[in-house]
Amino acid sequence: MVQINSNFQKLPGSYLFSEIARRVAAYAQANPDRALIKLGIGDVTLPLPAAVTAAMHAAVDEMATAQGFHGYGPEQGYSFLRDAIAQQDYQDRGVNIQPDEIFISDGAKSDCGNIVDLFGPDNKVAVCDPVYPVYVDTNAMSGRAGEYDEKSGRWTNLVYMPCVAENDFMPDLPGEEVDMIYLCFPNNPTGAAATKEQLKPWVDYANRTGAVLLFDGAYEAFITTPGVPHSIYEIPGAETCAIEFRSFSKTAGFTGTRCAYTVVPKALTRQGASLNAMWNRRQCTKFNGVPYVVQRGAAALYTPEGRQQAKDHVAVYQNNARVIREGLANAGLTVSGGVDSPYVWARTPNGMGSWEFFDLLLRQANVVTTPGAGFGPSGEGYIRLTGFGETEATRQAVERIRNVL
Amino acid sequence: MVQINSNFQKLPGSYLFSEIARRVAAYAQANPDRALIKLGIGDVTLPLPAAVTAAMHAAVDEMATAQGFHGYGPEQGYSFLRDAIAQQDYQDRGVNIQPDEIFISDGAKSDCGNIVDLFGPDNKVAVCDPVYPVYVDTNAMSGRAGEYDEKSGRWTNLVYMPCVAENDFMPDLPGEEVDMIYLCFPNNPTGAAATKEQLKPWVDYANRTGAVLLFDGAYEAFITTPGVPHSIYEIPGAETCAIEFRSFSKTAGFTGTRCAYTVVPKALTRQGASLNAMWNRRQCTKFNGVPYVVQRGAAALYTPEGRQQAKDHVAVYQNNARVIREGLANAGLTVSGGVDSPYVWARTPNGMGSWEFFDLLLRQANVVTTPGAGFGPSGEGYIRLTGFGETEATRQAVERIRNVL
Repeated sequence: MVQINSNFQKLPGSYLFSEIARRVAAYAQANPDRALIKLGIGDVTLPLPAAVTAAMHAAVDEMATAQGFHGYGPEQGYSFLRDAIAQQDYQDRGVNIQPDEIFISDGAKSDCGNIVDLFGPDNKVAVCDPVYPVYVDTNAMSGRAGEYDEKSGRWTNLVYMPCVAENDFMPDLPGEEVDMIYLCFPNNPTGAAATKEQLKPWVDYANRTGAVLLFDGAYEAFITTPGVPHSIYEIPGAETCAIEFRSFSKTAGFTGTRCAYTVVPKALTRQGASLNAMWNRRQCTKFNGVPYVVQRGAAALYTPEGRQQAKDHVAVYQNNARVIREGLANAGLTVSGGVDSPYVWARTPNGMGSWEFFDLLLRQANVVTTPGAGFGPSGEGYIRLTGFGETEATRQAVERIRNVL
Repeated sequence: MVQINSNFQKLPGSYLFSEIARRVAAYAQANPDRALIKLGIGDVTLPLPAAVTAAMHAAVDEMATAQGFHGYGPEQGYSFLRDAIAQQDYQDRGVNIQPDEIFISDGAKSDCGNIVDLFGPDNKVAVCDPVYPVYVDTNAMSGRAGEYDEKSGRWTNLVYMPCVAENDFMPDLPGEEVDMIYLCFPNNPTGAAATKEQLKPWVDYANRTGAVLLFDGAYEAFITTPGVPHSIYEIPGAETCAIEFRSFSKTAGFTGTRCAYTVVPKALTRQGASLNAMWNRRQCTKFNGVPYVVQRGAAALYTPEGRQQAKDHVAVYQNNARVIREGLANAGLTVSGGVDSPYVWARTPNGMGSWEFFDLLLRQANVVTTPGAGFGPSGEGYIRLTGFGETEATRQAVERIRNVL
């Protein structure tokens, strides 16, 4: 008799987004005349940049010919893309990352999830609270989280690092020793961005204790503030303790096109083993590379036209985030994020609960948001709004929210 | 201090293909005037079918417009593709598989590898010998294989089921109880195809003992012999014990375009848990779907033109395999496979070792093959040749081999 992985049975249902969908559907059915504006989900709305679609068309044409056909590619990704990333995303910023430290993948979600393959079952895992649920769920599935406690909304064996107004949404170093530390900056969901000074203690901690930082930089393209690092490797010593996840999803609208990359420096070793070699082995064994056509599309983002188009793309969302942030602040809400991030994190008024405020905005303003409590206990009392909507709809949504406050 | 997954350190190097590449490169360097023909690797050579590239172009055009843009898709795949697969690959063959039992993915290699996430660490795993290395390596990485024994070329905790001439390359039911059983038919590397009568005992065994069959049907499109089933679900009872992996890689040249699917029936439960629900949870947590453009390309294979083009595509490789099989048989070699499969499995002459014959063919015929020993101990004394080459080159290669025997 096969034994299933019993850790799956410990997982609570995927409450957050299914519960949002349920409430939205119920409201929409009862009020078919109301046009809802959705600022809840983190999906983009702008079409792919022209440089990307042109490159994809050209690649499809290649695939239609015997001479231009590409079969199995390198599992790690094509050199034309790895080289461009190493040069433009790292070396041009003074960070010495080489192409063979970059692994092209189908998404930061896949990589953030699959990275747990490299680690033993008994490591202590630290996550921010609130947090992107993938870090938690993938460690729960692989047996590192302990048991889920319904009452506290926490797993018994994870170390939670609250990110709240009191600490400016920056986690404090954990009081107990931890081995795997997930950090995401600019942060999902709070929108907080970390400076070099704020990141340095984490790099120092990991190098001192032998922990590994799992650094999610999916929202790097939204950074505008000088001094906010675009990569964890801008912090001296990070190359011996950090893995970085990056994505084209929010940079250039690749959420439905699927391309991302993960950096595993060759200097990162533990117990005498190279994590770069381990990840290479993992990817070569369980992955077969990203579609040639998609890699050509991503590589177009490293041409002068592609870079400019991606910047223009991000600027639209940055402006939306600004409209939300300023509009809600003017309406008297306490807001953070939305500067170096597409996410605005708003305190609910009058101590209202996340879900209560969500319902109020849904019913009275016809705007869909995300209740902060869905990202963890410390998200209670907040909602998340995203700048990924359409500009005019975003403006309207803010107006509607102001009218009901 | 983080603890790495120490199972990775037990893995022997990826000897087979790197060793082939090393020997080929050394020979080519020493003999730059010789034109090598490669019949070793399992990659395809024909361009994508016209229906596929037309659909991909149309999808890229959609992605370039605000109205046609597709962001995050369902992790399980779009209905337009799941519905077509359920109808044409299953229901039209009298097999009751529903769209929500089908999970679109970026490759059968990914799915074959990731499926181990669903199972506990203490299951006993059975594999054919010779075998596709991914089944073995992914179980080794997740701690089910025990230790690698250099001498025997086997892992101490895996159950090996020899597939040799004596049993017509059909595994015998294992003598000890096993929990996870990998079967691949038509087989890689032997090219053997299994009849319904040959598969029935495995389904009965799994249903009786509670084992799970992990059935790799990546080469289904090559089946021509009547009575050879195209799916494990043609065997009554398979829906309560089998997961099936299918791929567009060899059906329509998707090796570099990346689309496949896995079937997990809702009737498949163990310890009260639905494996369909578990795989759904796994995919929703660690995967974000296949590119929209690629899924549109795959869906084009279910149109009348697309179906015909894929058939024509496969027919070219089937003919190549026939040319290899007949040519080598006429030259006096003992060959099998190559009928319902792109792979021809040839006995080495005069009891020669796999690598010895590989070297002879490389040097004297300038043809690259794959030594059977690379797929497991029972592959010793065989080489694998593939029908995926170009037709004229394949004909020449066979001629050259005949001349040196």
